[in-house]
Amino acid sequence: MVILTLNCGSSSAKYQVYDWDNKDVLATGVVERVTQDGSVITHKPKGKDKFVLESPCPTHKEAIELILNAITDKDHGVISDMSVIGAVGHRVLHGGDKFTKSVKVTPEVLDTFRSVIGLGPLHMPANIMGIEAAQKVLPNVPHVAVMDTAWHQTMPESSFRYAIPKEWYEKYAARRYGFHGTSFLYTAKRASVLLHKAPKDTNVIIAHVGNGASMCAVKNGCCYDTSMGITPLEGLVMGTRSGDMDCALPFYIMRQTGMSADEMDTAMNKKSGLLGITGKYTDRRDVEENAAKGDKDCQLAVDMECYRLKKYFGAYMAAIGPVDAIVYTAGVGEHSATIRAKALEGLEWLGVKIDPKKNALANTGNAETCISADDSKVKVFVIPTDEELVMTEDAYAIMNGTYDVHTNFTYSFQDPAYRNKAREEGLKKDLEKHPDLASIIVRP
Amino acid sequence: MVILTLNCGSSSAKYQVYDWDNKDVLATGVVERVTQDGSVITHKPKGKDKFVLESPCPTHKEAIELILNAITDKDHGVISDMSVIGAVGHRVLHGGDKFTKSVKVTPEVLDTFRSVIGLGPLHMPANIMGIEAAQKVLPNVPHVAVMDTAWHQTMPESSFRYAIPKEWYEKYAARRYGFHGTSFLYTAKRASVLLHKAPKDTNVIIAHVGNGASMCAVKNGCCYDTSMGITPLEGLVMGTRSGDMDCALPFYIMRQTGMSADEMDTAMNKKSGLLGITGKYTDRRDVEENAAKGDKDCQLAVDMECYRLKKYFGAYMAAIGPVDAIVYTAGVGEHSATIRAKALEGLEWLGVKIDPKKNALANTGNAETCISADDSKVKVFVIPTDEELVMTEDAYAIMNGTYDVHTNFTYSFQDPAYRNKAREEGLKKDLEKHPDLASIIVRP
Repeated sequence: MVILTLNCGSSSAKYQVYDWDNKDVLATGVVERVTQDGSVITHKPKGKDKFVLESPCPTHKEAIELILNAITDKDHGVISDMSVIGAVGHRVLHGGDKFTKSVKVTPEVLDTFRSVIGLGPLHMPANIMGIEAAQKVLPNVPHVAVMDTAWHQTMPESSFRYAIPKEWYEKYAARRYGFHGTSFLYTAKRASVLLHKAPKDTNVIIAHVGNGASMCAVKNGCCYDTSMGITPLEGLVMGTRSGDMDCALPFYIMRQTGMSADEMDTAMNKKSGLLGITGKYTDRRDVEENAAKGDKDCQLAVDMECYRLKKYFGAYMAAIGPVDAIVYTAGVGEHSATIRAKALEGLEWLGVKIDPKKNALANTGNAETCISADDSKVKVFVIPTDEELVMTEDAYAIMNGTYDVHTNFTYSFQDPAYRNKAREEGLKKDLEKHPDLASIIVRP
Repeated sequence: MVILTLNCGSSSAKYQVYDWDNKDVLATGVVERVTQDGSVITHKPKGKDKFVLESPCPTHKEAIELILNAITDKDHGVISDMSVIGAVGHRVLHGGDKFTKSVKVTPEVLDTFRSVIGLGPLHMPANIMGIEAAQKVLPNVPHVAVMDTAWHQTMPESSFRYAIPKEWYEKYAARRYGFHGTSFLYTAKRASVLLHKAPKDTNVIIAHVGNGASMCAVKNGCCYDTSMGITPLEGLVMGTRSGDMDCALPFYIMRQTGMSADEMDTAMNKKSGLLGITGKYTDRRDVEENAAKGDKDCQLAVDMECYRLKKYFGAYMAAIGPVDAIVYTAGVGEHSATIRAKALEGLEWLGVKIDPKKNALANTGNAETCISADDSKVKVFVIPTDEELVMTEDAYAIMNGTYDVHTNFTYSFQDPAYRNKAREEGLKKDLEKHPDLASIIVRP
């Protein structure tokens, strides 16, 4: 049986086809420019060449048909026909405070999603359209919604409430929600495995640093606090988002410039962060490269990103008590030794000590590595994330009737013997190039 | 010689008269309802009864005349005539990034203050009016401006810049400024004295917790970071200010409610914080009392205030490296054992350990006390602040030509033998009531 996962953005649809029986990814891909001119699918079947096709997608329905055609195609397909698809997992940005776990999509669930569109106006309409389109094309399988917010529903009230008029919370559900929950769930469970501890005995701080970035304080295996807020704007310095700032600042700039509220919203989300500081770059590789060449704005951007990370590490160490491990994940977390090291610089007196040689080696996305010094009280792991696997398992388990909230459910990747087949392949190649990498790999 | 200090708000004027030769406070007081009906002065001369007088003050000029009449009055006055006033120190909220220290007021300085009114629209007009009015009434003495922001000008760029479009910084000076600088200067210098260290060798974290509240990370005796931002809105949970939140939140609420930008500004500054959470209280004594009685909103307010403090303690411990001491100051910091303890709960593994008995004893505002356990790696002090003394000394030293930025200047209160006379009097009474208090007093 195969599980299809879908992640529909406003003008894109990403997918993965997972062979449940063999626990292996059969294909990944993306349709870009959905609802725009020049829609195009890029399909990557396992062991075959990449396939690219332009085809009009005026709505998400055509995009999903394009995906299904690609994965069932005689030449570049990966399954014989649609009947082998057992369930579809959909990524959904915002579940408000209505969902503590993934859920089978029903008309009522879709109504609930519609009721929280105001909390995620950029993502929710596309998420809902994607589900509706997929239901039309695949009417006979369960569709499962996997919310980025669900993981964070264990936060105590002192973490999730803002110090605002309480009717804003009661009437408008204005509170911290947090995002990247699927990634935090995966990496938190994996950290427990690497630490040989039960999740309920595990305290970790996870930094998911990609273009978007957020941090999660995990106490006794559950989310205790997280840096993103009612929207994904709050917290760390991101590619184009400002993260934390004085809430009076946007109003001051609006008074100075005459900008509208909508223009300010766009500026804070799309023109700030590393792009705002450097005026040019959002990609950390560009920022780091130009910082190394002496570009002052890029040096400042690196300093600011790392300093913000460092303050959150400290804040969450104070928040959750003795911490077993710090975890880096996602693109930058998995690949930038510079940012990882700089963000933890000077924390030795608090029990966090990176081994610079180990850190420099840790740039494979194909294995879990430990980069802390042997005498570091707090371990530092780099754990490649796998959000699609969580989505796949949730969809499968809901279809199968075995699913429950993560504290009552054991994922396949919580088995010490679990291996990601594609990554094991990639790791072989990495080890050929960098045999030293073996010394930092953690195998539970 | 006498130094007068003035703190003019939009509808008030606070003052202190200090006898420089005898190092003693002669009088304090306040004119309330300035520019409104029913203006009234409350004058507290040392060793005499309080004096209250209603008298119209259509502008700050009349208020300052009222103050001068009170302090030179035959019956309740404290000086013979105005000629003994050697200098006037004025509290000014915002110096932008133009001033790293206090400064003699000149027409150019006033022009600079006018140029940054946009950064402090509520306070700056009153601050400027107060200076102009005092200059008219006391034209022959130097007037000195003491900015709340000056202390913070040593922050590195990675602390004071926001991750916003850089032209907002370059054109509109949008950056972190920080406030309560005079209080942080005083308490940081005193912490060095208590630690028997030179300021340049001292790392401390200071929590100034009053109705307004902010925290300062002091590295090598200088401000390294602070929780307030471009305005006093950012950071801790305050009496009526929200402190930190997702900058998308006010815009979300404006969309939901139709509130204007000005209404939102007022709500974030005047209707949020403890008042917002509890719906009723801004005073910590009310909040704590009702929390103890079982009021859920008040319990949440205490939890949120302490949790925010805790996260900042952790963040700043990470930011500045090995920390010598944590300092509590201002109304709540000096008097609420509950909040002090709760904010540091669970930090033992990071080297911070409060002694509950000592903490419970520390509610005099008249002595410096140590409330950490003997085996705490980081000391925890309660240091009553004295912003007026810093203003007085800056005004005196500028008049006298001996003043310089704090790193090149030694204040009288940096002398281990320094004593605050009024507080020594108060302390005697406190010790009669609570002899155990003696065990926690720190005398350098």
